[in-house]
Amino acid sequence: MRIAVIGSGALGLYYGALLQRGGNDVRFLLRSDFDAITARGLTIMSAQGNFHLDQVAGFRAPQEMGEVDLVLVGLKTTANDVLTRLVAPLMQNPACSVLTLQNGLGNEELLADAFGPERVLGGIAFLCSNRGEAGIVHHLGQGSVRLGEFRGGGSARTEQLAVTFSAAGIPCIAVADLCRARWEKLVWNIPFNGLCALTGKDVTEILAVPACRAQVREMMLEVSAGANTQGLSTPLDGATFAEKMLLATDAMDHYRPSMMLDRLAERPVEVQAIYHEPLRRAARCGVTMPRVQLLAALLSLPGSLC
Amino acid sequence: MRIAVIGSGALGLYYGALLQRGGNDVRFLLRSDFDAITARGLTIMSAQGNFHLDQVAGFRAPQEMGEVDLVLVGLKTTANDVLTRLVAPLMQNPACSVLTLQNGLGNEELLADAFGPERVLGGIAFLCSNRGEAGIVHHLGQGSVRLGEFRGGGSARTEQLAVTFSAAGIPCIAVADLCRARWEKLVWNIPFNGLCALTGKDVTEILAVPACRAQVREMMLEVSAGANTQGLSTPLDGATFAEKMLLATDAMDHYRPSMMLDRLAERPVEVQAIYHEPLRRAARCGVTMPRVQLLAALLSLPGSLC
Repeated sequence: MRIAVIGSGALGLYYGALLQRGGNDVRFLLRSDFDAITARGLTIMSAQGNFHLDQVAGFRAPQEMGEVDLVLVGLKTTANDVLTRLVAPLMQNPACSVLTLQNGLGNEELLADAFGPERVLGGIAFLCSNRGEAGIVHHLGQGSVRLGEFRGGGSARTEQLAVTFSAAGIPCIAVADLCRARWEKLVWNIPFNGLCALTGKDVTEILAVPACRAQVREMMLEVSAGANTQGLSTPLDGATFAEKMLLATDAMDHYRPSMMLDRLAERPVEVQAIYHEPLRRAARCGVTMPRVQLLAALLSLPGSLC
Repeated sequence: MRIAVIGSGALGLYYGALLQRGGNDVRFLLRSDFDAITARGLTIMSAQGNFHLDQVAGFRAPQEMGEVDLVLVGLKTTANDVLTRLVAPLMQNPACSVLTLQNGLGNEELLADAFGPERVLGGIAFLCSNRGEAGIVHHLGQGSVRLGEFRGGGSARTEQLAVTFSAAGIPCIAVADLCRARWEKLVWNIPFNGLCALTGKDVTEILAVPACRAQVREMMLEVSAGANTQGLSTPLDGATFAEKMLLATDAMDHYRPSMMLDRLAERPVEVQAIYHEPLRRAARCGVTMPRVQLLAALLSLPGSLC
């Protein structure tokens, strides 16, 4: 499969490298580390085994990347103002689909408005990785992907893509209800990304304080209530799902969510996709998420990281 | 009037000094600045006029303070574990009343349990002051007091006390509904003390961000809803009152609430009296204050000040 990676951060480089190692023709849009990667290749450091790709097809502009079958989007949503402009040249091939693995809500809609909803797939990545020096990506854990059609429902295309990903070592399933999968991820992302980013505490430190654990749970229930206004195929059982998420998080040893790392590095944080868009969609259906509102407001205070 | 000041911080020293200057026999329980104040007196620095008291009656223990007519409590509520022990020796005079000017809820109850509800008065101080070097208090603004009977209703005693305070230069009125006055103060204290303490931003910086201003307003509405379960003589009109409080705060130029100063100085913060007790009382009457809950939980995270 010919795959263009747009947004070659830790996520795009990691998945792209696995797909290339798995025999696909992967082409990366690169910026700051173009020289390093095209000269010396790409190294993945992982507890599951390090590997190095000698030859990496790097490009400085999407117009130079040629014809591909799939655009894989790993761009931070904070750069979404350039998203469709970067993807457009590749979509001139009418058989090309675009799969966004970005966080939060609203990304598929941006792509659907530009290229047509039938060409858009979305995926939720459960991946912990970050970039080291130029050309090196550290894979810290997990890595599975759940992907589906933006328009909803199953398809041969998503099933085939899940097989391609799985064959490359990326545990992947196709889901019929992408909207539900996105909201399920938000049940975790909304409390933990924001609370950790705001307070500078990791998930273990947050959950160690009983009052905070209780509020994480309440926020999960708020998000589940918001999710259940979005026409999911089957509703989320908020209490059960929250308990499951809390127990899963207990097993994460001092994990620092991406938004916390962004704040610590003084990069912009993905407040629009992870907070404002879910708040807006739930409110439109009559559900207020008060704790989520407060957290989103505090994240929008300039420099309020502890 | 013979007055014992228990808790001679910025508030106790300021009000005590004014009352002494107004002709009352004021006695201060002192700790760290006993030597400085008994040797050199007490200085109030204020835009309304500086003044100095040469002779100040300082004591190291309440047992030494003699018989008084009123105990004025200015102790931080974080020291409430010693409150009744400090006040008890002075209450051996059966004609002595105790007036607590402490923040939040639960202080009158502590005193009422120890000395009988009929001996307890409460007051809400609108005062901005802080301590300078030993023996010097800076009065930054305001200073009025609203006081009332713990048991509710008006009384000749509170009316007389309001006259005594006013004559000493402390604008003071007696209120028939102390509970309502306390909750009115909480409508301001709960959002601003906590948000400023948590984020390290002053009230002007908080209100400058529209999403934060909106959340302050929502928290004020939550507190008003909580207040209106507490048997107030007349209910609070939440929306109108919130608007009034927001406009009043707009006029405060980069004001830093006491809890923010406490956090910055790494002193304990009054979370129990200002958050947990109001949350508990509202919840007992069926009202949840979700944003207040979240803020209280974040304030209980160790070292989460920005």
